[in-house]
Amino acid sequence: MAKRKTLKQDACPVARGLDVVGDLWSLLIVRDAFDGVRRFSAFQKNLGVARNILSDRLHKLVGHGILAVSPASDGTAYGEYVLTAKGQALFPLLVSLRQWSEQFLYRAGEPHSTLVRQDTGQPVPKLRLVDDTGRALAPADTVVRKLPSGEAA
Amino acid sequence: MAKRKTLKQDACPVARGLDVVGDLWSLLIVRDAFDGVRRFSAFQKNLGVARNILSDRLHKLVGHGILAVSPASDGTAYGEYVLTAKGQALFPLLVSLRQWSEQFLYRAGEPHSTLVRQDTGQPVPKLRLVDDTGRALAPADTVVRKLPSGEAA
Repeated sequence: MAKRKTLKQDACPVARGLDVVGDLWSLLIVRDAFDGVRRFSAFQKNLGVARNILSDRLHKLVGHGILAVSPASDGTAYGEYVLTAKGQALFPLLVSLRQWSEQFLYRAGEPHSTLVRQDTGQPVPKLRLVDDTGRALAPADTVVRKLPSGEAA
Repeated sequence: MAKRKTLKQDACPVARGLDVVGDLWSLLIVRDAFDGVRRFSAFQKNLGVARNILSDRLHKLVGHGILAVSPASDGTAYGEYVLTAKGQALFPLLVSLRQWSEQFLYRAGEPHSTLVRQDTGQPVPKLRLVDDTGRALAPADTVVRKLPSGEAA
């Protein structure tokens, strides 16, 4: 058995979330959607992914309510893919992935795209997990409370 | 061509990050490591994943410097896998995935594991992207500044 049954019903939100967006292409599509990409052909050009894979992932993202199909803004027959509120809510996930990657996967001075504020052009500050008083919370300050059954991490 | 060449050298930190952790099993292993899992057999039991896949992913995570192998804490011959600083830095990513999933993938009242503070047992607050003054930043407040070449989103 190469794959566990399914994560869809998992009691751990990390697992259930990965079942929906734990896929390279899905997250790259969501990234592009945040950047304003809306057309199949534009996703295809940007990602260099095979059309059948792109089609499958777009279909899946629409099925999960992360993207919605809307009429083309230019009045042509092509549909456009836009982020729903559920899709927009993936922003912190993409930002945390970006910031981790910037810190650990680039050599000093190696150029990369940057997330900046629209108004000032200043880099967006590091995403921090803080408590209600604004104090930073480290992993060791937290613990996962599992279900009484003890099932699933 | 089913797969784009490689994301390893991509100028977009989201893409490069996904190349390293954009895998279901890799992130579930990192999740378990945050929960204190250290042994091959314990990961295997928790994840219900085939041994060859687990072995491959652990090897990859060690290769990327996300996990390190350390001597068994009980003096036996088994190695243990522990998060490095680079691995620990994935905490905000897992928290943002968890919080998004909690918000959108569970029915009202459906039980799930919860991330709480170790000291008070209170749920960890929502991860928020804020500017230097503490004001929330929405996706529309930000823009990705690409490299001059315009290559890669």
